[in-house]
Amino acid sequence: MTWSPGTGRAGRMQRERYGYSPVADRTFAKFTFFKIDPAWRRRDDTERAADKREFLAACEDFGLDRSMRAYSTIGTRGDTDLVVLAQSPNLDDLHTFHVVLGQSGLAKWADTPYSYLSMTKRSPYSEEAARPEICVSERKYLFLYPMVKQRRWYGLPAEERGRIMRSHIEVGRRHPDVSINTSYSFGLDDQEFVVAFEGDDPGEFLDLVQELRPTESSAYTERETPIFTCVAMSVLKALDALDGTASVSTPAPVSAADGSPSAA
Amino acid sequence: MTWSPGTGRAGRMQRERYGYSPVADRTFAKFTFFKIDPAWRRRDDTERAADKREFLAACEDFGLDRSMRAYSTIGTRGDTDLVVLAQSPNLDDLHTFHVVLGQSGLAKWADTPYSYLSMTKRSPYSEEAARPEICVSERKYLFLYPMVKQRRWYGLPAEERGRIMRSHIEVGRRHPDVSINTSYSFGLDDQEFVVAFEGDDPGEFLDLVQELRPTESSAYTERETPIFTCVAMSVLKALDALDGTASVSTPAPVSAADGSPSAA
Amino acid sequence: MTWSPGTGRAGRMQRERYGYSPVADRTFAKFTFFKIDPAWRRRDDTERAADKREFLAACEDFGLDRSMRAYSTIGTRGDTDLVVLAQSPNLDDLHTFHVVLGQSGLAKWADTPYSYLSMTKRSPYSEEAARPEICVSERKYLFLYPMVKQRRWYGLPAEERGRIMRSHIEVGRRHPDVSINTSYSFGLDDQEFVVAFEGDDPGEFLDLVQELRPTESSAYTERETPIFTCVAMSVLKALDALDGTASVSTPAPVSAADGSPSAA
Amino acid sequence: MTWSPGTGRAGRMQRERYGYSPVADRTFAKFTFFKIDPAWRRRDDTERAADKREFLAACEDFGLDRSMRAYSTIGTRGDTDLVVLAQSPNLDDLHTFHVVLGQSGLAKWADTPYSYLSMTKRSPYSEEAARPEICVSERKYLFLYPMVKQRRWYGLPAEERGRIMRSHIEVGRRHPDVSINTSYSFGLDDQEFVVAFEGDDPGEFLDLVQELRPTESSAYTERETPIFTCVAMSVLKALDALDGTASVSTPAPVSAADGSPSAA
Amino acid sequence: MTWSPGTGRAGRMQRERYGYSPVADRTFAKFTFFKIDPAWRRRDDTERAADKREFLAACEDFGLDRSMRAYSTIGTRGDTDLVVLAQSPNLDDLHTFHVVLGQSGLAKWADTPYSYLSMTKRSPYSEEAARPEICVSERKYLFLYPMVKQRRWYGLPAEERGRIMRSHIEVGRRHPDVSINTSYSFGLDDQEFVVAFEGDDPGEFLDLVQELRPTESSAYTERETPIFTCVAMSVLKALDALDGTASVSTPAPVSAADGSPSAA
Repeated sequence: MTWSPGTGRAGRMQRERYGYSPVADRTFAKFTFFKIDPAWRRRDDTERAADKREFLAACEDFGLDRSMRAYSTIGTRGDTDLVVLAQSPNLDDLHTFHVVLGQSGLAKWADTPYSYLSMTKRSPYSEEAARPEICVSERKYLFLYPMVKQRRWYGLPAEERGRIMRSHIEVGRRHPDVSINTSYSFGLDDQEFVVAFEGDDPGEFLDLVQELRPTESSAYTERETPIFTCVAMSVLKALDALDGTASVSTPAPVSAADGSPSAA
Repeated sequence: MTWSPGTGRAGRMQRERYGYSPVADRTFAKFTFFKIDPAWRRRDDTERAADKREFLAACEDFGLDRSMRAYSTIGTRGDTDLVVLAQSPNLDDLHTFHVVLGQSGLAKWADTPYSYLSMTKRSPYSEEAARPEICVSERKYLFLYPMVKQRRWYGLPAEERGRIMRSHIEVGRRHPDVSINTSYSFGLDDQEFVVAFEGDDPGEFLDLVQELRPTESSAYTERETPIFTCVAMSVLKALDALDGTASVSTPAPVSAADGSPSAA
Repeated sequence: MTWSPGTGRAGRMQRERYGYSPVADRTFAKFTFFKIDPAWRRRDDTERAADKREFLAACEDFGLDRSMRAYSTIGTRGDTDLVVLAQSPNLDDLHTFHVVLGQSGLAKWADTPYSYLSMTKRSPYSEEAARPEICVSERKYLFLYPMVKQRRWYGLPAEERGRIMRSHIEVGRRHPDVSINTSYSFGLDDQEFVVAFEGDDPGEFLDLVQELRPTESSAYTERETPIFTCVAMSVLKALDALDGTASVSTPAPVSAADGSPSAA
Repeated sequence: MTWSPGTGRAGRMQRERYGYSPVADRTFAKFTFFKIDPAWRRRDDTERAADKREFLAACEDFGLDRSMRAYSTIGTRGDTDLVVLAQSPNLDDLHTFHVVLGQSGLAKWADTPYSYLSMTKRSPYSEEAARPEICVSERKYLFLYPMVKQRRWYGLPAEERGRIMRSHIEVGRRHPDVSINTSYSFGLDDQEFVVAFEGDDPGEFLDLVQELRPTESSAYTERETPIFTCVAMSVLKALDALDGTASVSTPAPVSAADGSPSAA
Repeated sequence: MTWSPGTGRAGRMQRERYGYSPVADRTFAKFTFFKIDPAWRRRDDTERAADKREFLAACEDFGLDRSMRAYSTIGTRGDTDLVVLAQSPNLDDLHTFHVVLGQSGLAKWADTPYSYLSMTKRSPYSEEAARPEICVSERKYLFLYPMVKQRRWYGLPAEERGRIMRSHIEVGRRHPDVSINTSYSFGLDDQEFVVAFEGDDPGEFLDLVQELRPTESSAYTERETPIFTCVAMSVLKALDALDGTASVSTPAPVSAADGSPSAA
């Protein structure tokens, strides 16, 4: 696991745009999960293409100068199909984006079974500043879960918590190809943390999580489900996975973040 | 956190209207959460405008001489879109308001995934009277959750509970820009308390909640979810956020409580 | 709280009708909660009036010689609109009533999110006989919840349980304007008890429940939610609250139990 | 409670048909709960009659030489209307029966909110063989719940468990008019046991369950809800209760198991 | 129970195709549960036949050189009808398969109430390599559940866990006709393990699970529900069970894995 702050394009853009000092360089992260009504798939090709195009346009517009990522959970879970991760240092930005997204044709046929709002902040267990952007790697998968710790954890002395977390981090360091992204939801949403790992090998990640079970920190976990295995791809490809139909529009640069051709 | 009773317009109006003595100056607070059926967004513009207008009229009428606030949760949660907070010292008032609201076009396309009924009362940890109105600030966000304490809390001696709460309050005092509004639901609804914080900076509130975790009082919490981050705005703007379409009617004064122009 | 058995009209009628001895004078109580499909409100006035009329007729027929009460939860909860409390010493009576009710137009647009079946019986903590009818007062509100006690409660010696309950009852006695109605569901439904309080002042009831928290008996509660604040009214008025439209038919005497004119 | 194995007609038929030895004489029991879509009640009389007729035909066919029982929960619960109990020593039989039942008109408008699959087996606390059929009495009500015991129960020595169960059984013996039917679901379904009591007097059963609370065995219960009070009747009558409309077809002998005339 | 790795056809095909060494021979297993909308059964025969044919084609295509199994839960559970188990060493394969499957007519009328993603890996309690394929037997039933262990289990020394698991395995060895298939979900899905047993005799399996309750390992189980009893059959037969109508197309060889004629 690498614990270094993101250095991605969107983070740079935010810094340029808002002129934040490192301390103020926190960002909101909003994970929105969509489950498409099976009835949508009964609509005809033209309607579905238009529905997706409107959704894509909202994402592309947001992503012009802010961080926008998409993932598909088709084939990994049954209760959600598509994950959109939007980031901004400004919460009203996220409100406005979801207002626009909600007007897209696709949103009229979608439920939102899960949603996580969080912020980055400086970790008490590290010297590094708050990250201006999370989930910036080009790795193939995102492994994501909301986490709540047992209250007795917070009753431990700070040095004790530090000691326990360092041994936890040691295990992560054995797997340098897995990146960790921790953001914080205290008081903003139901969980305390949103934990997201990026990796190319689900088997390695599975082994890592199993290796973490005997660590002392693991005993302080109150809740860490649901766990989502998300396949990283451009918004366009994630939309095309919904109905198995390639969109014909040329993808905008931002939406082709995974570098692959956008449609088969 | 400021623990002083509200001094808002609606509170004054209630005192004038009902002639309550300070001791009797308790109010009911009803938080009603609406999730709009995605199918509503498929209705045409004229229909949606009429649906919203009827909903707005009900709110404006109630708000003529009682406290009426609105918040949007679009972009912060996935299971609710709109929060209406209606307050009155008279419970039948709230019944009647919701009867009227239920007849509005919008309510015919809405579910109510959450609802909290509570009352203000004098706190055992303060000298102040019960508040005649809550959530009276002009701050940008409301952070809201229902709370239940562990039963063993109530088995502690009163002085012990007072001591624990005072150290909890100390932490809050370090953040004077966050206002707290506590109301009580014992026997009236599923939770014991409805806790609502008003602030302009979600990051500061997140930090405050995380600072409270190691306090002694935190260990006595049984439940404090779901947690809602709500964006304060006029009823009209909160309605317009539902379909991203500005209403053309001139907003009534009461519904423009946030002082901003009501439509883009 | 008054712990005396009901002396209402329906109880008398049951005794006359079935000739029960005091010991056999138990009654079944069935609380049925209705949530109306928002789509019902889109039906036209004539259809809704007919739908309500059929529902009312079923209730009036049952109430001719049995106990029938109605309550509205509009404005107090979001997951239910209407509560019907039907009582009879004969369970088949309740089955038949709900068969008839299910055929009414309104039931074709309603879900039943909650339902509690219970019976009265002689309390082990009182000398009084089982009540032949519950919820007989003319008070304005009913505060209702299903209750389950922790299993360790039943492992205490009977005299210990008696001592604990007496101190619980002492607190209730300080509030003579609140009537308690306890019925029993062991083996018949998911809860052990259905507890219903009648009162005119929700603030007083809230204070009473909060006063009960430090009592010893409170520590033995396993579950006591959901908690319903119900506004007592005639069946006709509770139906008219569903669509905010006054029915034009003359109410039958039984349905106007609250003595108020039945429609605006 | 009587703990003797069933001696019913269907059990005899199974023995004759399959030639089982007493040891092999186990049966599968499948409890299927149906909740009818309120929209079904909006269909016209002819359609509903046909829908019910197809459902009835599937049940009658199964019941020709296997155990088939029906119960109504209208008036006792809100989340289910109809319970069908099908028994066979052959699991594929139950699969086939539910395939056929699923094609009936009624099933096209029904959800299955609960379902319990279990088998009979010889009790470790009795000398008796596994029962070839359960729920064979002509009593008026069935009281049914799935049960899971706490894991620490299974850690007790066998003789200790035997001692505890015997005192539990003693309480049951005081109520000879209540028959108990226990079947087992370990590894086949979510619960460990399906416990079903047959009786004519719900008040007596309520008292029995309350008497069992202080017994030692009661402290080892992990879960025993939901609890269903079911009104025993022929399949035909249980179907007619769904829409309050008597079917005009002559009932087949098997469906009139309760001996009463099949339609009003 | 047999704890030997699978030697099935699909495993062999994978080895030939991908040239994996034994250590790398892990596979992903995706269990997808379908519940068909009752409204689907109201569609006409031709439509339903086409809907099933498209679903079957997707499964057959996947199964050409990968492991594909189907099971029916009709008659054993109420919340799911059909289980598809797809296996591949490549997670993108599973994503693509579910994209295709989602476009089939049947998927447009289906919900996915349960879904489990897991991987095989070498057991710490055995010398054997990770299995390249699970659920390869021709036995009639699959008994399946997701499992989570208590965190204190992972705090035990490895040798202690080994000792406890060996005595657990001893009990399984008494039932050689039951095959166990354990796969791992740490970090990939909500459970830690997906445990699947194959057997011909549900009664024997029930007895085995009950025998395991007093073992030491059983006390460390946190969750092991829901439990699914699944009837093994070809995809074609499992589809035909959905509407009780035999498809007329000739089944492809892969889909007739159970060797029985594919339609009545």
